[in-house]
Amino acid sequence: MPTRKKRILDCIRSPQDLHLLSIEELGILADEIREQIIDTTSKTGGHVASSLGAVEIILACHSILDAPKDKIVFDVGHQSYAHKLVTGRLSAFDTLRSHGGISGFPKPSESPYDSHPSGHASDSLSVASGFAKAKLLRGSDEHIVAIIGDAALAGGMAFEALNYIGSQQLPMVIILNDNEMSISRNVGALMRHLGNMRSTQGYRNARDFLQERMESGGRMSNAFAEFGKRVKESTKHMFIPESMIYEQLGIVCTPPINGQNIADVREMLELLLPMDCPVLMHVVTKKGAGFKPAEEDPVRFHGIGPYNPETGETYPKPSSGPKYTTVFGQTLLAEAAEDDRIVAITAAMEDGTGLKAFHETYPDRFIDVGIAEEQAVGMASGLAAAGLKPVVALYSTFMQRAIDQAIVDVALPERDVVFALDRAGLVGDDGPTHHGAFDISYMRMIPHMRVLCPSDADELASALHTALHLGGPVTVRYPRGCAPAPLSHAPELLEVGRARQVRTGADAALLAWGRAVETSLAVAQMLEAEDIFCAVFDMRWAKPIDERAVREAAECGTIITLEEGSVTGGAGSGVLELLARAGLSPQVRTLGLPDEFSMQGDTALLLEDARLDAIHVAAVVRELLSGSVSDL
Amino acid sequence: MPTRKKRILDCIRSPQDLHLLSIEELGILADEIREQIIDTTSKTGGHVASSLGAVEIILACHSILDAPKDKIVFDVGHQSYAHKLVTGRLSAFDTLRSHGGISGFPKPSESPYDSHPSGHASDSLSVASGFAKAKLLRGSDEHIVAIIGDAALAGGMAFEALNYIGSQQLPMVIILNDNEMSISRNVGALMRHLGNMRSTQGYRNARDFLQERMESGGRMSNAFAEFGKRVKESTKHMFIPESMIYEQLGIVCTPPINGQNIADVREMLELLLPMDCPVLMHVVTKKGAGFKPAEEDPVRFHGIGPYNPETGETYPKPSSGPKYTTVFGQTLLAEAAEDDRIVAITAAMEDGTGLKAFHETYPDRFIDVGIAEEQAVGMASGLAAAGLKPVVALYSTFMQRAIDQAIVDVALPERDVVFALDRAGLVGDDGPTHHGAFDISYMRMIPHMRVLCPSDADELASALHTALHLGGPVTVRYPRGCAPAPLSHAPELLEVGRARQVRTGADAALLAWGRAVETSLAVAQMLEAEDIFCAVFDMRWAKPIDERAVREAAECGTIITLEEGSVTGGAGSGVLELLARAGLSPQVRTLGLPDEFSMQGDTALLLEDARLDAIHVAAVVRELLSGSVSDL
Repeated sequence: MPTRKKRILDCIRSPQDLHLLSIEELGILADEIREQIIDTTSKTGGHVASSLGAVEIILACHSILDAPKDKIVFDVGHQSYAHKLVTGRLSAFDTLRSHGGISGFPKPSESPYDSHPSGHASDSLSVASGFAKAKLLRGSDEHIVAIIGDAALAGGMAFEALNYIGSQQLPMVIILNDNEMSISRNVGALMRHLGNMRSTQGYRNARDFLQERMESGGRMSNAFAEFGKRVKESTKHMFIPESMIYEQLGIVCTPPINGQNIADVREMLELLLPMDCPVLMHVVTKKGAGFKPAEEDPVRFHGIGPYNPETGETYPKPSSGPKYTTVFGQTLLAEAAEDDRIVAITAAMEDGTGLKAFHETYPDRFIDVGIAEEQAVGMASGLAAAGLKPVVALYSTFMQRAIDQAIVDVALPERDVVFALDRAGLVGDDGPTHHGAFDISYMRMIPHMRVLCPSDADELASALHTALHLGGPVTVRYPRGCAPAPLSHAPELLEVGRARQVRTGADAALLAWGRAVETSLAVAQMLEAEDIFCAVFDMRWAKPIDERAVREAAECGTIITLEEGSVTGGAGSGVLELLARAGLSPQVRTLGLPDEFSMQGDTALLLEDARLDAIHVAAVVRELLSGSVSDL
Repeated sequence: MPTRKKRILDCIRSPQDLHLLSIEELGILADEIREQIIDTTSKTGGHVASSLGAVEIILACHSILDAPKDKIVFDVGHQSYAHKLVTGRLSAFDTLRSHGGISGFPKPSESPYDSHPSGHASDSLSVASGFAKAKLLRGSDEHIVAIIGDAALAGGMAFEALNYIGSQQLPMVIILNDNEMSISRNVGALMRHLGNMRSTQGYRNARDFLQERMESGGRMSNAFAEFGKRVKESTKHMFIPESMIYEQLGIVCTPPINGQNIADVREMLELLLPMDCPVLMHVVTKKGAGFKPAEEDPVRFHGIGPYNPETGETYPKPSSGPKYTTVFGQTLLAEAAEDDRIVAITAAMEDGTGLKAFHETYPDRFIDVGIAEEQAVGMASGLAAAGLKPVVALYSTFMQRAIDQAIVDVALPERDVVFALDRAGLVGDDGPTHHGAFDISYMRMIPHMRVLCPSDADELASALHTALHLGGPVTVRYPRGCAPAPLSHAPELLEVGRARQVRTGADAALLAWGRAVETSLAVAQMLEAEDIFCAVFDMRWAKPIDERAVREAAECGTIITLEEGSVTGGAGSGVLELLARAGLSPQVRTLGLPDEFSMQGDTALLLEDARLDAIHVAAVVRELLSGSVSDL
């Protein structure tokens, strides 16, 4: 094994060390960091493109700022690998995103340099506004820097924060990392469409029409005279920089600079830091900068598995069933061919939710609102009220952003909206900010809502088919990753609130939802060797729960519920509620994700942590049947 | 009784009738409607100020539009009384906001003219965008009009919608009802602060500093030259109309017109309706227009109880304990005197959450972010990370807007944030959009979260005191209205997860949270006369639930849980979860708000509807003890 030359990177013990480096040395360090990121992520996978693009911004910040006293708040922190490498996590970096290893996102419990667990887009400015207000209250002198991407600025939360920050003139530097794309390319995110918008024919026609009308005189001549001036101003504005919108909120904006040039970024940052008002520093970067395969295909390199560090090629996966995402996309496409009222809505997750083919086939019926889940759900309400059948496809974790809209805008007026929640349950490497742990609990509490938890590819197709045929709001939640087997038959219409028994047995009944059905079958098989015979029910519906199946299960005397979702208020609690209402008292153990934030890493390992793997579940059954009760 | 002259209003059977009226007749109708609103609300109470301000806008719309084919989407529809009066609900208008009567908000199930149940601010534009997209897909010719107040435009959801509407050039007229105030006067809502902002000294200094710096030359001369032009543009912009921000989003904006002049509003609307792109029609109205007491004190007349229609004076209420809101405000003020890390955050609900005195006493430590709950919670996370102790005071129903932020920004990093949720449970007249039915369910599912449900004034003070002394996120939820008695002692530190037994008894145990403790005591008293002796526990904590108390209760063999919150996943389900884990099988009945949207009206009547009044609960206890089980 060749001994590697000692790198500058190897000498960096803390960000303070960066203060001693020259611009040239910082440039060399940037190269070393890129190599390290590629070297590591080619084995672990990760968010490669955005992390490569942000190297210089991060080095510029840490070579000037005095972290952790000074606060750096990342927005969607998967761009922060360089930050991790210069804040004492080089030696552990090969554990990136793995079970027990370094998180792929900033994580305060991992390092004092991580000011916030940045996982959901658009929250950095709010958090930074808190830091800035605290600074003012204390009269202290730390600097506050938020780093936010252009796509995240479209989120309502970011706008709420800008509105407040501008109105209060909170002192902070907002680095706009403008990498000219969001997760999906076709999103009309704020910064992108502004230029285009003002030059569209529609907008210009409207202006011309109004101007003409106004010149013809009339009753409201004052108002129209004013309007005339406005039109001229506005026309002029077609040629001023887009970031002027932030100026209107009271936030000074700098012209764009090259974010891959450390010297430029440093110079601008040094200029802005002493100011005691909010400043938006516009920095243009390139996703994947310095690694050709990532530059050329930044979408694929947004979040990627292990790849060949020379070519960027990923490795073929062991064959198994299709991805749930793919099954959803294909099924929806087929349903849409039969029913032209179906429209698909996503929030900057076209690829991730499997809607690419839908978009290509039905461009008019495909809606991507950008990182704006509230708008996605609110718009769905309007579409449904107008007689269409919107399917809102989101990751489960991001649906959390629009629970109020699901309650007030959709469920209350009983609109025909289908929520397709991908990545429900454990998502693996992305960890606690991204697990879809809570959807069963919060969807179940909403009146009029029905919740389907398909257990395989066929069940997902049938669940979606059923949801589209039912009136009123319906949620279909399904896991990340691959189904156990390919589709084997056409979608079927499922009876509302009816489970299907997939195995008989009289000793105990396993009531399972989604991916846990497979686990339950494994448990039953395992126990059969010990002459313990378990019935297994694929419960299908987390709401309404099948009372007949629960009554049947209760006859065994022992019920174990199993779901890949929070055990607090989850489907298992629904079974308990039903049993209490029915006056039945079998012994019951509800198993699911425990009342804590699940960590990152391989899903099988996380399931073991949660004691939801077949071995642990079998132990619970044995224990219940033996009559001894503990808090296993 | 004098016979009243027949009014134009009495002849209006549908909005079509308005098409036949002259401007003069519409003006007379506006006066009649004002009289009717004052006449009715002086008896029923209601949202007087905003409804009076919007009369002309509504008449202008209905005298031109062809509803319900054309869609009128209100934002926070409590301004819609005039709309109700001209869409067939005059004869029932005296039942406004009462049990079984006309809703105080638009309600699709009440009338085909109500396109959306507008209750939570900032959702109208999203819903309207759905209508507009449906129109494009169908090629139909209906008009879409959204009516939104200036304060609601600060909400992130409205911004997300504008961003999408502008980018897609969806055809609609957005009527900005600019009444120059939001619920609380001091909110830095978007439209208000723009003018001021650009003229603040800080902003100007910043600009000057950067300009100087730039003129001195340097490496990035290109960027700085560009910046120079920008500064000039920006300075000019200090004098251009604020709504230019929407122009930047691709939405044509009209200059402001007088919203109390029907002719002006009609003329502008007729001009804009034929356009096939989004247009923002800026209309300035006066809250309370036409009723002097409301014009002079629009805050008091925002939502008001019965009042004297001549003087505007409200009537003294039957004396009882202090409002929970007041107890919260006073307690927080006292706590803040002891601990200068405490800051209070609200979202345009300063008065409603009892923070007026706090604001006056500690102006720097009081934060009102406007209608922007996501920002409120995100900012709290930053403040807590910086070592402060933020208390986020919201109505329970509006906390639904920031559940993701509670999960990801606060609970995951275990920030010391207190959520003070006012109006938890049933809120009475405002009805289904405003009940705080779900907070126990969604807060309980969040790891690290603790949930306190105080049952009276002393308990609320102690709960808040305790929450501020605990680390990590804590929720305190308390009802609308008055506590049974005034404060009787200083706040006490409550033991985490410990209930207090308030009555002994061995036949059955009533486990109650919040206001339900009083009901439970009444039930116990009622049953004592029949020699049924019930233990009553004030459970205090919905999370963690007191295991010792539950085990003790289980010894009775019969447990009834009682809470003013959703029975699905609520505190009662928490008891079931605990019993299952402990392997205990008493008979249990969980009582709470049923799995449906509670309606409007007197809270006592709503509790009867939900069978949560003492008489119904007592019947459940009797029935359980007699051994017969039904779905009562």
